[in-house]
Amino acid sequence: MIRIGIVGLGLIGGSLGLEFRAQGYPVVGVSRRQTTCDRACERGLVDRAEVNARILADVDVVFVCTPIGAIAPTLTHIIPHLQENTLVTDVGSVKRPIVEAVRPLWPHFIGGHPMAGTEQQGVEAGCLGLFQNAPYVLTPEPETPAAPLATLQTLVQGLGCRLYLCNPDEHDRAVARISHLPVMVSASLIATCSQGLSPEALKLAQELASSGFRDTSRVGGGNPELGMMMAQYNQTALLAALADYRDRLGRIETLIKQGDWPALAQVLQATQAARSGFL
Amino acid sequence: MIRIGIVGLGLIGGSLGLEFRAQGYPVVGVSRRQTTCDRACERGLVDRAEVNARILADVDVVFVCTPIGAIAPTLTHIIPHLQENTLVTDVGSVKRPIVEAVRPLWPHFIGGHPMAGTEQQGVEAGCLGLFQNAPYVLTPEPETPAAPLATLQTLVQGLGCRLYLCNPDEHDRAVARISHLPVMVSASLIATCSQGLSPEALKLAQELASSGFRDTSRVGGGNPELGMMMAQYNQTALLAALADYRDRLGRIETLIKQGDWPALAQVLQATQAARSGFL
Repeated sequence: MIRIGIVGLGLIGGSLGLEFRAQGYPVVGVSRRQTTCDRACERGLVDRAEVNARILADVDVVFVCTPIGAIAPTLTHIIPHLQENTLVTDVGSVKRPIVEAVRPLWPHFIGGHPMAGTEQQGVEAGCLGLFQNAPYVLTPEPETPAAPLATLQTLVQGLGCRLYLCNPDEHDRAVARISHLPVMVSASLIATCSQGLSPEALKLAQELASSGFRDTSRVGGGNPELGMMMAQYNQTALLAALADYRDRLGRIETLIKQGDWPALAQVLQATQAARSGFL
Repeated sequence: MIRIGIVGLGLIGGSLGLEFRAQGYPVVGVSRRQTTCDRACERGLVDRAEVNARILADVDVVFVCTPIGAIAPTLTHIIPHLQENTLVTDVGSVKRPIVEAVRPLWPHFIGGHPMAGTEQQGVEAGCLGLFQNAPYVLTPEPETPAAPLATLQTLVQGLGCRLYLCNPDEHDRAVARISHLPVMVSASLIATCSQGLSPEALKLAQELASSGFRDTSRVGGGNPELGMMMAQYNQTALLAALADYRDRLGRIETLIKQGDWPALAQVLQATQAARSGFL
């Protein structure tokens, strides 16, 4: 039976613990705070939890479920306690910088990204079913050995995820467009609708905002820390996506300026048709 | 008892008919097609319906529920059949160009805009409850007499709407930002994620797209004809909103280029805080 360790017991780490325990795997957890360890045990996220990483001494697979910026420091911290062949994976939403930082520290590392979430955070957030039908990307590289990859694939597929394998750069370019770009696009919309207006115009806009504004502004109104880290760790790919976006938006603006309504209708027909390919 | 006429028996017209009939008002309908008239009667959207506007001869209030571009031509068509004091209102999502076009044709006109909708269209789309808690804007002007405005306010409030009064220009500037701008912002996102990518990159983006992309792209994947008409009839206000938007997006892009993460986090904190004022 594969023995699992989870470092970071928030939404993703806690949900992974619940799922793996429900499948009968032994699961231990690590958190920086004793109160989190205690609560994680109470909630049944893990069998046992400690602030000390020595609890990872006999596990086969470690899921590092900290924020992106803490992944490499966490590796440095837990490595002295791991067995030589322990497989380590992470759940960060950007892969290339993590792979680059972690590979020199630990050869048995395979990057991962479960694309699931709720608005919740912290030790109370973990829940069963979070990963059902969600995409879960693994980013093995040519030198990744087959056996640990197969182990990780088995674990991920047991979560009910849709598993995808690609290299870290392909992953980062894709999520820059479909996940990080929307945050900046949406935040800019909120800024445009809320800043620099007269008090009367702002009040009217707030009163008339309906489902179109609500949906388009959702991710721009999300966790600021997370949005900032996406940009920081996926800077290059996000800037490329933003440059493309500026170009697309400029074309639409030009058509509106020119009053070329048939051409604008064509653009909107194309986007209507294209969207269904993403759902 | 106020007698009501509805011209155009699609989503909005049909829903208005159902609501007013449920409140006991007599309601007649006009559609260009006999099959639509027949179906509207079968569905109980109206008491009677005809393709001929003479059916409006004894109504007190007419709701013109055609697409924006058909509102003024519809007025020209029905005017010969109206009584001198019949109040006419519309449901178009832009107000200044309609008011300008219609006022010379018919002095007893008050612009209106119920901000409710579903994905449905046509005579099968009308449904009860569509307007519950939705904003409904009326745009009276200084010369609008008080009595017909009071009648219309009574009818609108009976729908369960949140009624707002403002002038047509204020309305158009507000909806340019919170309703028309999101369509263009969202369509540009879809274009960026679907056009100019390699087949492999497109496939990966499609597979990894999740709720963030789904919500941010929803209105950009909507009815192209409607999006085009918003731009056509609200061109000036929408261009102003787009220019503002470009500026806001450019500021975010600059912060990402500069790697000024604390400043980016501040921007995202401000948009997170501002969004709640619109919900």
